[in-house]
Amino acid sequence: MNEKMLNSHGGDIYKASKVYGFKKEDILDFSANINPLGVPLDLKDTIVSNIDNLVNYPDTECMELRAEIACSLNISTDDIITGNGASEIIFLLFDILRPEKVIIPAPAFSEYAKAAGQYGAEIKYFELKEQDYYKLNIDELIAQMTDGVNTIFLCNPNNPTSTLVSKADLLELIRYARDKNIIVIIDEAFIELTEGGNSNSMVECIREYDNLFIVRAFTKLFAIPGLRLGYGIGNPALIRKMWEKKIPWSVNSFACVLGEFLCESKDYLTQTAQWISEERKWFYDELKRIEKLKVFQPETNFVLIKLLDNSLTSDMIKDILAARGILIRDASNFVFLNNRFFRVAIKGRSSNIKLLNALKEVLES
Amino acid sequence: MNEKMLNSHGGDIYKASKVYGFKKEDILDFSANINPLGVPLDLKDTIVSNIDNLVNYPDTECMELRAEIACSLNISTDDIITGNGASEIIFLLFDILRPEKVIIPAPAFSEYAKAAGQYGAEIKYFELKEQDYYKLNIDELIAQMTDGVNTIFLCNPNNPTSTLVSKADLLELIRYARDKNIIVIIDEAFIELTEGGNSNSMVECIREYDNLFIVRAFTKLFAIPGLRLGYGIGNPALIRKMWEKKIPWSVNSFACVLGEFLCESKDYLTQTAQWISEERKWFYDELKRIEKLKVFQPETNFVLIKLLDNSLTSDMIKDILAARGILIRDASNFVFLNNRFFRVAIKGRSSNIKLLNALKEVLES
Repeated sequence: MNEKMLNSHGGDIYKASKVYGFKKEDILDFSANINPLGVPLDLKDTIVSNIDNLVNYPDTECMELRAEIACSLNISTDDIITGNGASEIIFLLFDILRPEKVIIPAPAFSEYAKAAGQYGAEIKYFELKEQDYYKLNIDELIAQMTDGVNTIFLCNPNNPTSTLVSKADLLELIRYARDKNIIVIIDEAFIELTEGGNSNSMVECIREYDNLFIVRAFTKLFAIPGLRLGYGIGNPALIRKMWEKKIPWSVNSFACVLGEFLCESKDYLTQTAQWISEERKWFYDELKRIEKLKVFQPETNFVLIKLLDNSLTSDMIKDILAARGILIRDASNFVFLNNRFFRVAIKGRSSNIKLLNALKEVLES
Repeated sequence: MNEKMLNSHGGDIYKASKVYGFKKEDILDFSANINPLGVPLDLKDTIVSNIDNLVNYPDTECMELRAEIACSLNISTDDIITGNGASEIIFLLFDILRPEKVIIPAPAFSEYAKAAGQYGAEIKYFELKEQDYYKLNIDELIAQMTDGVNTIFLCNPNNPTSTLVSKADLLELIRYARDKNIIVIIDEAFIELTEGGNSNSMVECIREYDNLFIVRAFTKLFAIPGLRLGYGIGNPALIRKMWEKKIPWSVNSFACVLGEFLCESKDYLTQTAQWISEERKWFYDELKRIEKLKVFQPETNFVLIKLLDNSLTSDMIKDILAARGILIRDASNFVFLNNRFFRVAIKGRSSNIKLLNALKEVLES
């Protein structure tokens, strides 16, 4: 059951361990785009020290956590809604907005279209092109925002292309959209892992532009996909409507206490940003050396890659590597991509070397 | 913000600690109906030993957990869907079913009507009467299942009345409903804490009656409202539809590993059932001795109480006790109840004595 869902996202070490017989801890998972530094030690301590708190219902408003987020991003708690991963935020947002027509630059994370479609929206994809290295041309996108489009959903930096749109371009888009009563939703799940981190975020514009909504999560940054914590930032009236419709207590107690850790995590953020930046450059250069691969320049912690070897498909290389205990993301099911594309996360140096060697063996033998 | 939600359920120690200045750990919370034995120690160990697993996405299908649940209840994994608390299951179920008219025996947990209403259902309440001690008369209920009612949602044992419907009565209801194409949804959140525990459950009928759906959770039994884990049991075709529409990964990694603990928890279950049974009898007898209270006989781990003192309302007594660090559930916002009703959980003996003494002081002074 549910085979479709299992195969359609990265990070399924459960199936991999079952099919290939590896222990979960021995699997090198390049398919999920999380911070290779792993769960911060202090965060683990925070969680363990809060274990007795399980006997209480979580604070359904996540007040302390929201106060810390607000403080760290220089916004107000009224601008913030917390949820069970970014997924809950995205589905809830579409449930409230019920847009008629949504434009989505693609290839993109499939949950956007799923959520929009579930609430009755028509989806119009704006194609990011291989010849442009998947960079978004903001003027072309604006030219496509016609025919009743009343919402745009984009991911910045974008998954799976690892491309970043400049703040100047986004501002042009948001201003244009505001004049046309179009809502701009930006998923910034990977923003902290770009060079410059939060300075690339549009959060500072949230109070000026009522038509801007930002989806964020701590999943990737703190390597805690298991904890389930995402949040949305938008105008207080919309945020209030979302709170009213939200399922109560959807954020668990452990996720609620993340605030305690957050205020002390600046060092971790700086360390991560610097480390990822350096590793990204090195990994990209090394990947480019491998024959039969076209590597698209990454701007966050994962890389989109195209196979130039016609005898191999992304599905095949996924299986070959999985048999060696290495998981990658077959990217063939992203809109506008095909069975030549795959995506890998940037991990620690020794893991990256293992992937590079495995790719070389497979492709250059 | 969200004041309404905060006040409408029990278990809000956050507000209480803020308003009255108590430390969270010093508050005696009788407002949330959880197992007074607290989080089982072995479960805490299971959680701590799985903390490194946070770096992985949770198994979105919760395969291991569902296998353990299936084993413990003698059903199949295909009969089970896991979710972020019972809340996610209930909202998802109504989203799939979209019933036109739902009958709800009441007073009842308000989320049933909220979820049904959110998906367009008309709500018809079937009044449980004080003169019947809030016991459900199944024949009267069946007589009300007319005029396009196509779904019935009941809680067994019922919250806030703490009354249990017999299996024979439920079977009569389910059979009648099946002939009329009516779906019967039973929330069994408190079933393990009744005398007889799971033997009062309708789970054994799940394969015979396609029109039966059961909502359950580990929240109350294992005292883990902070963990967020509920599940639904129904016919595999309906369960499959729910999986397809469900937000991915809504059950966090810590909740997913509950299965590891579940298979070893039989002793805890037996110990709990026996202990609660004895404490319930004692607590009920002691409560009845207090002047100016009408106490309804409890069949699970909480008690519905009516104030006979006309100078006091449930809101007033809630505030008076809160100022002493004791939280109770003002039950005035339950349909068919009023500002004379409150609900208290059954806790450990020393806590129960503190509540009894406080009530005596307030009511008999």
